[in-house]
Amino acid sequence: TKKKDKEGGKKKGKSRDNDAKAALKVPKGMRDFDPLEMAIRERVIGRVRSHFERHGAVTIETPVMELYSTLMGKYGEDTKLIYELKDQGGECLALRYDLTVPFARYLALHRVSSIKRYHISRVYRRDMPSVARGRFREFYQCDFDIAGNGAPMVADAECVKLMAELLTDLPIGGFLIKLNHRGLLDGMLEVCGVDEADFRPVCSAIDKLDKEPWDKVRAELIAKGCTEETCDLIQGFVVLNGEPAALHAEIVASGRFASSERAVQALQDLDMLCQYMAALNIPEGAVRLDLSLARGLDYYTGVIFEAVLTDGGSKVGSICGGGRYDTLMGMFLPNPKNGVPCVGFSLGLERIFAIVEERERAAGVVRASKTDVLVASVGKGMVGNRLAVLARLWDAGIAAEHMLQPNPDLRKQLGKADTDGTPVVVLVGEDEWARGAVKIK
Amino acid sequence: TKKKDKEGGKKKGKSRDNDAKAALKVPKGMRDFDPLEMAIRERVIGRVRSHFERHGAVTIETPVMELYSTLMGKYGEDTKLIYELKDQGGECLALRYDLTVPFARYLALHRVSSIKRYHISRVYRRDMPSVARGRFREFYQCDFDIAGNGAPMVADAECVKLMAELLTDLPIGGFLIKLNHRGLLDGMLEVCGVDEADFRPVCSAIDKLDKEPWDKVRAELIAKGCTEETCDLIQGFVVLNGEPAALHAEIVASGRFASSERAVQALQDLDMLCQYMAALNIPEGAVRLDLSLARGLDYYTGVIFEAVLTDGGSKVGSICGGGRYDTLMGMFLPNPKNGVPCVGFSLGLERIFAIVEERERAAGVVRASKTDVLVASVGKGMVGNRLAVLARLWDAGIAAEHMLQPNPDLRKQLGKADTDGTPVVVLVGEDEWARGAVKIK
Repeated sequence: TKKKDKEGGKKKGKSRDNDAKAALKVPKGMRDFDPLEMAIRERVIGRVRSHFERHGAVTIETPVMELYSTLMGKYGEDTKLIYELKDQGGECLALRYDLTVPFARYLALHRVSSIKRYHISRVYRRDMPSVARGRFREFYQCDFDIAGNGAPMVADAECVKLMAELLTDLPIGGFLIKLNHRGLLDGMLEVCGVDEADFRPVCSAIDKLDKEPWDKVRAELIAKGCTEETCDLIQGFVVLNGEPAALHAEIVASGRFASSERAVQALQDLDMLCQYMAALNIPEGAVRLDLSLARGLDYYTGVIFEAVLTDGGSKVGSICGGGRYDTLMGMFLPNPKNGVPCVGFSLGLERIFAIVEERERAAGVVRASKTDVLVASVGKGMVGNRLAVLARLWDAGIAAEHMLQPNPDLRKQLGKADTDGTPVVVLVGEDEWARGAVKIK
Repeated sequence: TKKKDKEGGKKKGKSRDNDAKAALKVPKGMRDFDPLEMAIRERVIGRVRSHFERHGAVTIETPVMELYSTLMGKYGEDTKLIYELKDQGGECLALRYDLTVPFARYLALHRVSSIKRYHISRVYRRDMPSVARGRFREFYQCDFDIAGNGAPMVADAECVKLMAELLTDLPIGGFLIKLNHRGLLDGMLEVCGVDEADFRPVCSAIDKLDKEPWDKVRAELIAKGCTEETCDLIQGFVVLNGEPAALHAEIVASGRFASSERAVQALQDLDMLCQYMAALNIPEGAVRLDLSLARGLDYYTGVIFEAVLTDGGSKVGSICGGGRYDTLMGMFLPNPKNGVPCVGFSLGLERIFAIVEERERAAGVVRASKTDVLVASVGKGMVGNRLAVLARLWDAGIAAEHMLQPNPDLRKQLGKADTDGTPVVVLVGEDEWARGAVKIK
């Protein structure tokens, strides 16, 4: 067939891979980025990086592939989404699914005991792509993590501070950071009479409360073996949310968690976190303690947080999330107890790109080229003259270009400068050239 | 086994992939990059990008994977080096081998008729890794290409200008750009009596002249069917090299190529190129016309160039190479004649990283962190005070950090500032705090 599928993976259709001419497309769920999209992405990444660097973070890179064994047993059901490579008589390799497991592997391999690092790079998931929901098979992750033993809650508080900084600075509207603690969550389930073996499945039901009504979640809890009484008790807890210090004081005063040792410990952590957040001058109202926040991943061990956008309805949902995971690195060591505690978060860069792109396109301010000068010419046979002017500009460090045609029409040259948003046009004409001059527009 | 293979793919050894604990390593021929290495890489990339952008180039990104059919038939024998993915019931996918074929695919898919773009990203080759020769299975490519119909030799001349600009600016020592033309090369073989069917294999023998003596190359030519007389004639040509305009004039005056139409056309191209290079103010002696330059790849159709480093012996060899390829994009179109002519080059970024890293480490100037201030404290219980000072700095846009420990030793804090190269230490002490002051070192 001669018909081209310009949308690549975005359109449904039979695989025509065997027909080289017909298969003019990109892999399913993947995308090319044109210069305008790249300009927006690089600008956003630059802005995000400047915040990480302001906090003294350094960056690392790891291979896009890992041994399959490194990824095995880390993602639960999602393991089926991992891209595996053909075994070509060597190692069993797979493309990375996220940046967190490679980070833990990096810490273990290089025996790093303390680092504050960010990592902005692409990851791969054989998920069902959905353009509408911004879900792709190849996409950017943007992680910030602090690894190392330190004073309790200091790194956790810095993560919240940095999230607030980033989300305030990026032009993506209002936000709210929800906060909870795995110890408080587990203590809550304990107090409500949930069996410890059911903690994770019950948590994953509670995690859906930001998308589904209580009745639906309650039905799932019943199906997972909770009694009606337990459900009532859980409901009484998960509705709790408010300004962290105030809600914390209220919860402690109520004594509702007094019977759970891990909840008491978690409340001490949260008390310290509230003090540090105050010292860090995090904007009033930016953070809420929310007992319904559960986070899906198993590996969190302490504070968890998640930021949601509050403008534009619930369309974009969670934009940033993370928490403390003190045991992941240990999984790569002969003695897991030698693992370094970590806390960090992942910023939803693809969603931010989409929001910024929509805003900038609407405002008409997007520009791909960084050229300052277009060297235009009038009259025939002026190529060499244009090049001589260009060389002067380039050698002086000035970003300049010209049209490749031998004798381009003046109207076309000015039109190009206009379309590209090039601020200056240097006009080379025969008469001026004879006088050693050019016109500047 | 509990022994760790810290070197990843660098060491030989049996695959132990089935033992999760033992397989603490990265895939063969691949590398992690630590913060110091990343700082150097990002600095070099930033410098290279600024040159591309000075020439009005924009950037694009393509997926790290392509349909296998897109890569098929483009790399000759090297096709066996392509990483294929497991067919998981969908498309046959492979990791990109270079950035040139994806660029041609991009132009065809999006019907781009004119673009000046650069692309700095990683590519994958299942080659035999060699740390000594800087050959890896995952490495950066850095391509600059101009696609579009324009005045002859204008884009080609800009490529040479940009190569000279880059190699002058990067701290990698002296360089020499060799220049030739596929038409002149083919015309030379024609004049020497080589059969047209043997042009490419004979070219690939001549291409070895920068590494091997004439006797060895001559033997290969004989083995490929050249007569003794043809060899003598070829030898008389390939020794020709010199300042482009002068050598061009000499060759034209000699009339040695007069019988080959394509050589005559190529000489006209080279004449125009010399004029444009003069207009572009390319440093004297930076470029030589060299009739032994052949370049391995089949797809070149016009001017070819290659830069070599002239300091530090022949250790690093070719650092940059490219040429005109007017037919590659057409291979992706129903009518190949609709393809857009292209010219461009690839900069050997990994080698440049290695040279810069060696120089900077020797000079002791490498620094991974961009932090300006370390907030240190004296006395116990000062975490909250440090955080309050940090918040003031962060909120003012100043890059600052502190040690995570609750009560770090002053000596350790100053030692960290020294090691990291942090220029300013803000010292928070109880007495000063009471007065609302800090000490600055």
